[in-house]
Amino acid sequence: MQNFELWKTDVNSQARLGVINTTSGAVHTPVFCPVGSLATVKTLTPDELNDIGCEMILANNYHLYLRPTSQVVHELGGLHNFMNWHKPIITDSGGFQVFSLSHLRTINDEGVNFKSHIDGSNHFFTPEKAIHMQELLGSDIAMAFDHVPPSCADRELATKSLERTTLWAERCLKAHTRKEQQVYGIVQGGMFSDLRRRAAQEITALSFDGFAVGGLSLGEPKERMYGMLEETTPFLPPDKARYLMGVGAPEDIVAGVARGIDVFDCVLPTRVARNGALFTDEGRKNIRRAQYIKMDDSFDPNCDCYTCRNFSAAYLNHLFRSDELLGMRLASIHNVAFLWRLIKNIRLAITRDRFTIFATDFLGRYQVTNEDKRLEQKEQWLKANNRK
Amino acid sequence: MQNFELWKTDVNSQARLGVINTTSGAVHTPVFCPVGSLATVKTLTPDELNDIGCEMILANNYHLYLRPTSQVVHELGGLHNFMNWHKPIITDSGGFQVFSLSHLRTINDEGVNFKSHIDGSNHFFTPEKAIHMQELLGSDIAMAFDHVPPSCADRELATKSLERTTLWAERCLKAHTRKEQQVYGIVQGGMFSDLRRRAAQEITALSFDGFAVGGLSLGEPKERMYGMLEETTPFLPPDKARYLMGVGAPEDIVAGVARGIDVFDCVLPTRVARNGALFTDEGRKNIRRAQYIKMDDSFDPNCDCYTCRNFSAAYLNHLFRSDELLGMRLASIHNVAFLWRLIKNIRLAITRDRFTIFATDFLGRYQVTNEDKRLEQKEQWLKANNRK
Repeated sequence: MQNFELWKTDVNSQARLGVINTTSGAVHTPVFCPVGSLATVKTLTPDELNDIGCEMILANNYHLYLRPTSQVVHELGGLHNFMNWHKPIITDSGGFQVFSLSHLRTINDEGVNFKSHIDGSNHFFTPEKAIHMQELLGSDIAMAFDHVPPSCADRELATKSLERTTLWAERCLKAHTRKEQQVYGIVQGGMFSDLRRRAAQEITALSFDGFAVGGLSLGEPKERMYGMLEETTPFLPPDKARYLMGVGAPEDIVAGVARGIDVFDCVLPTRVARNGALFTDEGRKNIRRAQYIKMDDSFDPNCDCYTCRNFSAAYLNHLFRSDELLGMRLASIHNVAFLWRLIKNIRLAITRDRFTIFATDFLGRYQVTNEDKRLEQKEQWLKANNRK
Repeated sequence: MQNFELWKTDVNSQARLGVINTTSGAVHTPVFCPVGSLATVKTLTPDELNDIGCEMILANNYHLYLRPTSQVVHELGGLHNFMNWHKPIITDSGGFQVFSLSHLRTINDEGVNFKSHIDGSNHFFTPEKAIHMQELLGSDIAMAFDHVPPSCADRELATKSLERTTLWAERCLKAHTRKEQQVYGIVQGGMFSDLRRRAAQEITALSFDGFAVGGLSLGEPKERMYGMLEETTPFLPPDKARYLMGVGAPEDIVAGVARGIDVFDCVLPTRVARNGALFTDEGRKNIRRAQYIKMDDSFDPNCDCYTCRNFSAAYLNHLFRSDELLGMRLASIHNVAFLWRLIKNIRLAITRDRFTIFATDFLGRYQVTNEDKRLEQKEQWLKANNRK
């Protein structure tokens, strides 16, 4: 059985239909993976994710290394057993977190020295260690350890991080021992087209099971992200899965699929849910608004999620205005279910060779969050995470 | 159909077995009601309470009057429809909250003037208004509006609040119009035996559907609470349900049943759960403790709740140490399920005329939280609520 089977490519776009075969089962693509950094998709049980239909989640190597530690998860039978989620799990290597969350890092070709964002303790990550820790976690798909430059990186830094990412990619593959675990390589290259192409060529020359596009959605305008994606995916082999890291806004999933991406992950649906922002086909709406105070109907009449089936918009409004934790749960269920329905509709559209029609229709109705506001929120979020 | 049917009284104690018949269904007694002050048992869905087996919950008139307002709940079809819980609901009148949560209250025989603990706005509660608001909520059992003295009240204040509670009780009954809704009267009297007896005689002379013992578990030592209970329940009619308000520690439920109480409610199981304190047959244990870091077994091997069936103690420990909201959920499920199992065991013991044996056995094993620590926690909690 191949790790990835490409079933079909849309006739009018690069949209693809396929399946990733892992030891924990099959993952149909395109797919969105909810994020459970600390072995929990915030506020939700694995049963709730199963009810929605989710096929794969993402957990985080950096976070789990610090708490409860990779070794403890290993001794408890691995991540699946630990969190009672028995479908596929992909783990981020910690590259992004080491650069975005930790403090006082020093980096050289050997690895990254950093202080924990929790207690300030000193740690050293190398490509070998990042792979070993993911083997301890026992995820189905591990990610290579990469050097993630900020979106504002100049050519020099973008080049350096690209070269280091390639160097580390080779070391990751060499260090990897668990053959039942797949490993994906990561393409960096900052915001430079030629560097993206060069990175794609260098990383795809190595024997990874799939390829990820990293370093995007870090604060750059969406159009630039889409442009960088267009400079990258044509250089990725068609017979391997393609993963766009950290991307999960509905409009970006559609744009990503159109550009040949198979796998997405993002904290967005659960993070904004905890602030009361719920997805609809017309865009994100905040359930705290006064218009919902007396709305006895469900928040979204087009939605068949547990939340919309069982509770009124008025009740959700009340829960959020009263700071009740149940509100965060119900909003998280709705947002993950919304993205899952989007994924299913995308799959169906590709099957019927109607993806471009679907995408035009969806993007025509879906009002994207104002770009300035979006970037401001993103910046706040990155700062808040840094302070933690 | 009678509002309350007394099925059996234990031969060796005052423990009783019965059923409360409401328009939303039957509630077997003894019963424990989880508290959903704001129309949500914190962190849990109605489905989860149903799965545990809960037969009745308590919601709060004061909280719902302020948010989202009694009128809004009424317009949305009443409390059952609003929160999607279709089994019986009992509502507290707000008497306790007006005295414990609100600010700058002035009280006279007409009613209570107070400032909202949320926004400082001015409000005036009367017995008539408290009943009308509970009719708007549409609970199955409404409580009379009472004057709750602090546990340290002197004889003068205890007498005054008793007399006012009786005066208000009469006005509550006169104001009540929804005949399908039952109303329970409340016995006050502070920490004075003769006043408790007098209050019981005055309140039971009125045509309430059931009787509650109020003003206990407010910081006084447990032995005093039990003593006051013994001075009260003998003066309550056997053919009406008896409700001990705000009491829900496992040892107090057993002690209350032994003294003839049928109904209990308390925030305790869910409140301590959110701090990581989980009930066991041996007492409360904090899941954050280091001993659980690597415990792959369930937290309580005797427990068949959703949490213990699906997750290890180590995972719960990790969730709490990482401040993950799922931890609060899973701990709340466990604690409510623990109390529900206790209730079922109590019912079975009474059925078999073995209640005193059961109680001796249970209290012999269950290590009660240290009295000083308990009182300190209680004081902190009352203060914290006042600050809100």
